[in-house]
Amino acid sequence: PKKTVNVALIGKAFMGKTHSNAWRQVQHFFDPPVMPVMKLLCDVNLEETKAAAAVLGWQEVSTDWKEVVKRKDIDIIDLATPNFLHAPMAIEAAKNGKHVICEKPLANTLKEAEKMLKAVKDAGVKNMCGYTYRFNPAIQTIKKMIDGGELGNLFHVRATYQQDWIVDPDFPLNWRLEKATAGSGALGDIGAHITDLAHFLVGEISEVSAATETFVKERPIVAGGATIDDKKLAGKATKKGAVTVDDAAIYLARFKGKNTLGTFEATRFAPGRRNYNCIEIYGSKGSVIWNQEDMHQFLYYNGADKPDRQGFRKVLATDPAHPFVSHWWPSGHNIGYEHLFVHEMYEFLRQLGSKTVTHPTFEDGVKCQRVLDAVEKAAKSRRWEKV
Amino acid sequence: PKKTVNVALIGKAFMGKTHSNAWRQVQHFFDPPVMPVMKLLCDVNLEETKAAAAVLGWQEVSTDWKEVVKRKDIDIIDLATPNFLHAPMAIEAAKNGKHVICEKPLANTLKEAEKMLKAVKDAGVKNMCGYTYRFNPAIQTIKKMIDGGELGNLFHVRATYQQDWIVDPDFPLNWRLEKATAGSGALGDIGAHITDLAHFLVGEISEVSAATETFVKERPIVAGGATIDDKKLAGKATKKGAVTVDDAAIYLARFKGKNTLGTFEATRFAPGRRNYNCIEIYGSKGSVIWNQEDMHQFLYYNGADKPDRQGFRKVLATDPAHPFVSHWWPSGHNIGYEHLFVHEMYEFLRQLGSKTVTHPTFEDGVKCQRVLDAVEKAAKSRRWEKV
Amino acid sequence: PKKTVNVALIGKAFMGKTHSNAWRQVQHFFDPPVMPVMKLLCDVNLEETKAAAAVLGWQEVSTDWKEVVKRKDIDIIDLATPNFLHAPMAIEAAKNGKHVICEKPLANTLKEAEKMLKAVKDAGVKNMCGYTYRFNPAIQTIKKMIDGGELGNLFHVRATYQQDWIVDPDFPLNWRLEKATAGSGALGDIGAHITDLAHFLVGEISEVSAATETFVKERPIVAGGATIDDKKLAGKATKKGAVTVDDAAIYLARFKGKNTLGTFEATRFAPGRRNYNCIEIYGSKGSVIWNQEDMHQFLYYNGADKPDRQGFRKVLATDPAHPFVSHWWPSGHNIGYEHLFVHEMYEFLRQLGSKTVTHPTFEDGVKCQRVLDAVEKAAKSRRWEKV
Amino acid sequence: PKKTVNVALIGKAFMGKTHSNAWRQVQHFFDPPVMPVMKLLCDVNLEETKAAAAVLGWQEVSTDWKEVVKRKDIDIIDLATPNFLHAPMAIEAAKNGKHVICEKPLANTLKEAEKMLKAVKDAGVKNMCGYTYRFNPAIQTIKKMIDGGELGNLFHVRATYQQDWIVDPDFPLNWRLEKATAGSGALGDIGAHITDLAHFLVGEISEVSAATETFVKERPIVAGGATIDDKKLAGKATKKGAVTVDDAAIYLARFKGKNTLGTFEATRFAPGRRNYNCIEIYGSKGSVIWNQEDMHQFLYYNGADKPDRQGFRKVLATDPAHPFVSHWWPSGHNIGYEHLFVHEMYEFLRQLGSKTVTHPTFEDGVKCQRVLDAVEKAAKSRRWEKV
Repeated sequence: PKKTVNVALIGKAFMGKTHSNAWRQVQHFFDPPVMPVMKLLCDVNLEETKAAAAVLGWQEVSTDWKEVVKRKDIDIIDLATPNFLHAPMAIEAAKNGKHVICEKPLANTLKEAEKMLKAVKDAGVKNMCGYTYRFNPAIQTIKKMIDGGELGNLFHVRATYQQDWIVDPDFPLNWRLEKATAGSGALGDIGAHITDLAHFLVGEISEVSAATETFVKERPIVAGGATIDDKKLAGKATKKGAVTVDDAAIYLARFKGKNTLGTFEATRFAPGRRNYNCIEIYGSKGSVIWNQEDMHQFLYYNGADKPDRQGFRKVLATDPAHPFVSHWWPSGHNIGYEHLFVHEMYEFLRQLGSKTVTHPTFEDGVKCQRVLDAVEKAAKSRRWEKV
Repeated sequence: PKKTVNVALIGKAFMGKTHSNAWRQVQHFFDPPVMPVMKLLCDVNLEETKAAAAVLGWQEVSTDWKEVVKRKDIDIIDLATPNFLHAPMAIEAAKNGKHVICEKPLANTLKEAEKMLKAVKDAGVKNMCGYTYRFNPAIQTIKKMIDGGELGNLFHVRATYQQDWIVDPDFPLNWRLEKATAGSGALGDIGAHITDLAHFLVGEISEVSAATETFVKERPIVAGGATIDDKKLAGKATKKGAVTVDDAAIYLARFKGKNTLGTFEATRFAPGRRNYNCIEIYGSKGSVIWNQEDMHQFLYYNGADKPDRQGFRKVLATDPAHPFVSHWWPSGHNIGYEHLFVHEMYEFLRQLGSKTVTHPTFEDGVKCQRVLDAVEKAAKSRRWEKV
Repeated sequence: PKKTVNVALIGKAFMGKTHSNAWRQVQHFFDPPVMPVMKLLCDVNLEETKAAAAVLGWQEVSTDWKEVVKRKDIDIIDLATPNFLHAPMAIEAAKNGKHVICEKPLANTLKEAEKMLKAVKDAGVKNMCGYTYRFNPAIQTIKKMIDGGELGNLFHVRATYQQDWIVDPDFPLNWRLEKATAGSGALGDIGAHITDLAHFLVGEISEVSAATETFVKERPIVAGGATIDDKKLAGKATKKGAVTVDDAAIYLARFKGKNTLGTFEATRFAPGRRNYNCIEIYGSKGSVIWNQEDMHQFLYYNGADKPDRQGFRKVLATDPAHPFVSHWWPSGHNIGYEHLFVHEMYEFLRQLGSKTVTHPTFEDGVKCQRVLDAVEKAAKSRRWEKV
Repeated sequence: PKKTVNVALIGKAFMGKTHSNAWRQVQHFFDPPVMPVMKLLCDVNLEETKAAAAVLGWQEVSTDWKEVVKRKDIDIIDLATPNFLHAPMAIEAAKNGKHVICEKPLANTLKEAEKMLKAVKDAGVKNMCGYTYRFNPAIQTIKKMIDGGELGNLFHVRATYQQDWIVDPDFPLNWRLEKATAGSGALGDIGAHITDLAHFLVGEISEVSAATETFVKERPIVAGGATIDDKKLAGKATKKGAVTVDDAAIYLARFKGKNTLGTFEATRFAPGRRNYNCIEIYGSKGSVIWNQEDMHQFLYYNGADKPDRQGFRKVLATDPAHPFVSHWWPSGHNIGYEHLFVHEMYEFLRQLGSKTVTHPTFEDGVKCQRVLDAVEKAAKSRRWEKV
């Protein structure tokens, strides 16, 4: 039988649920070198955490993360907490020799992110930053195409991540809308994803020009706040609090060692877009377009097709020929959002006990954070800023 | 200077307008061997016909078609009249040695259609039946692909022609809804088009099974009736009359010398579909999908593409490489519906003075009529009928 | 703690894998009244079944289904076996008082299906026939719309289920291509699905006209045969065997007590279509279009929208407002194919211990089988046949 | 009979062809207050101009524009010449009391543009700058929706104009690729269009940040140069010349008196995009998306639709209810690219002899030019620049 590794997950909300599912499912569809054990779920409220552990499949619970990260029987710390907690938790976990998976963005600030990277490097532990969209079979296929030169020289990246869950001004304040807890708004939450995808597919961004905007300046305060899961809490509040993060960020980008031009938009104010994480890449030999709302497909234009047969193909990325897919269902039978996390955890486990490093690591997380940092600077300085 | 040919158009309604535009435009974009002169417009009401001729660009008018088809100075008779008038007019025109263009369906009945064919053959005049969708550059490209074997053996044809202009039960009776004038309803009006497209692209239909339905059995009678152009007349009427044609026809088909299976639907009762003339063809090497609402494009699946890059391409049929397009605008600059008639008239003129025969001829019209006839038979007999 | 129910699954191939996942996941996302225990996996080869049980999460294994269906400690028999085994297994299971879930089509023949229905009725056990696409949130929403009258009177159903996994003539024979094991080909495998969807959404089909075709008459025989999962076995064989089922079936349909017209196509010979289960419904007030390749969405046309704002909406059926979705992820975060089985098992469990009956039952399975039977008859008789 | 106005067109290339068609067609579909007469075509080569006049339908020809603009019998000067000729020609025409239509961009520089504006104002002549996409029925409908408050407060404009006609580095130099003749590259040619559309639909841009890039720095010189119509000339050249304009321009924008954020991209280096002029607008009540490759439609999201029925509608802008459409064909029968110019000329004629001013005027042209100017400045200064 395989060696087992004990996992402790901190955070039981939206991301806690996706990570739990991934830990539960990974062994049933993949063949990781070690077998993960869902040892412990940690969150602030004991009763709620117990209930969540029962539903999500965790053996134990705790409300004291500082103790958890020290436990001898824990091998992996998985962080699904609000952003401001990433740095202290990850650093303590690393100090205690734990492998660490951390949700994105890596930290609230570049400084914190760099400390986290130092901590995992010093400790020599495996580390991953949860830019999970990299694990979409469509994205993986596009990566292979670009690396194989199939798109030629890349002229343009055009990316947007559009959502609409807080367009209603009565949607209440929550941790994602406060600088102290979230670091930034749309920028760090979803702009981070398209930035990381551009890094993954195209290369590192070297400079940016930007603007940010907060369309709704203050919002109702509701006990407990509201989450992305719950649009229904609005309207009960009597007090209002300031929104201290951006609702939207737009930026132009140039890339290291390339003349590729990038335009980026991250917004929670695009009505009709539920989770439109979209990247378009135009190269001398062809072009690709992908978005997560239609996550099972991508569009591909091959400049080498005959002139009167050319056009963007809708490729269903559901074929056994696409990365990860052979582990799931036959061609044409879609996987969903949560599968990306299964792939992520599989990739994380794959490197344990070996010298392999699977990406995105904390280093990738820091690279992304540098861009976010430069975007915020550029929005203030009103000029291009180096990353 | 080129030789001129004088055209007389009979009928000034919807089809009269499209044909007039084609005669007016053809010389400005194409280089026909002879130059058409818009000599005469003929319709029943003198004042209205005069007004129409002024707007549409005809030199003279007449209300007496029998005289017109005898005029020495007329070379081409172009029929844009209700279906029941096609046979008498075309036959007289042919007898008088005129080349004849006739709107589709060729006739109200197969018998009439066959007489018309005999008449043009006996007279040795050029003849065309207006299945104008053949002249869409997308369709022409698909034709080339199929003829070149690019789709391999054809397994399936799946066609529908859906409209929704008479869904409202208060839409009044008009000539298109009466058997005496229209012969049939959706079947002959739009089912004829998909039948002809299948003939053009796949081959001749050899047998059919069918059903037809009239969803709205009677409708208001309004002075003058209502046309496809005018949904607004409804509601003023006090009397109702019987709808004596089908509102929808569906049929299965087999093809001569092939094991291709066909499913066809023609309906004026598909809300949301304005002019959805759609044909899908699946072959051993690839597949194509086209519809006229998005007339500037077609979808093409090439089975020879790499497994993880396969998918239906949206080909913009607006490139100079596509038939007819080089006469119009640069790539990506769409042509519209009426251009198909310009192509049709160009193709008609191209054969004058030569032995070339450009299709669709009256013979094609008769072949289509045979299928419509078999569909009507099959709907009644409730069994497969030979064409 | 909840009462538990022990499940025995028979069959470990494609459907065995989807059902196993559903049993494993249902309690983590839904709150069924009883807790399913994955007691036993049964299949023919002991070693393979042991290996599968380990991966899929079953406690025990067996190779003797007759013993399994008698075991006192088993509450639910779940059949994921080839079609010809459905009848004997389901009947024995029912006789032994087990609740039964049976993959579709219910049986190889209408006669068998009726016996199965009688068996579960006599035994008074809960029963379900696995028309799993009913459980897509998009389909459930469409059902609500139709039942609520939002589409008005239904004029047309246009359905196709297209796949392309056996277009290659070197794809080997397997149980799905032989009449003895599968009953029929595309008809019973995928035609059954669109027939059931039409029954669910529109009403019962009352008569049909049909044609079937086998494009590839014989295929290589490979040890073990090939499954839908594995296109790679072809080419090694030296012997060929006859394909004894249809590769494609097309049929026209009329519905009980309605003047709705239906056209249906089921084929494994539509290159480019991986799993294109598509249904279009046109009604006097609006229309809907859905297909399983893009399973997370449907198109909806509302005839009451303003004239210049009308059009088919692409509704992402991923909102908490859509059935089942609130159990999964926030709006815009897709579920996949296997989730439909989780919904199915939840719906099955929901009725245990109560008088509720959740559909599709064996009775629904029989109704569908009657149509399949009539289609086969009509294809032979070449006339319309009553269901 | 109506008063006639004599038109002289200068320039017979791509734009000369579209304008000629518009003058030829406008009276047949619209009812302008005056009747245009196609008096004279002017271009540099006498023989070519004679031939063009014959095909395009002009009565006379000239090669001396300075004489033409002075002719007493000319009422309207229509400029379809390379950009650097707009200013001298328009100014002379205005001085001679001619009404002027000028292709876009208005001029090579802001300074020139302002002089042109002064000239037409001083002369009191009617003037139009050819931002023809404004006249698409889809765009007109979107304009009505925004002006009527149907989209609410506008949060985002996301626009791109992508083409791919010069991706091949062997495509030769032409006037559009040299600063002296074109002023700028993608920016002034197509960036101008999306800028004008944003002005039309959203409001005036007040500041920008930008980057531009020339991907192919030098190109073959071919006798006569190559036009957008002709990709085939490349490869014959032995000499190369510098490309002195941008191949692509990207810019962020803010708007006067609004907190709307804009991202813009204009490029001739987007393989697969033939003429993808695309604008997306997101507002508090709804969103719209349109592109010219699919010019007959737009997408519309209405935030007021029921939660489980929401989604982007594909509105076919081909209904008589859409502006201009009732003059053409029945619903679902598309118009094409050239029709936009017919609308433009109709709108121009509509104001003659009245006090009405139809847009876009030279003033609109200057406003657009100011943005282009600021974009070029910002690309150099690497900071936000006021318009």
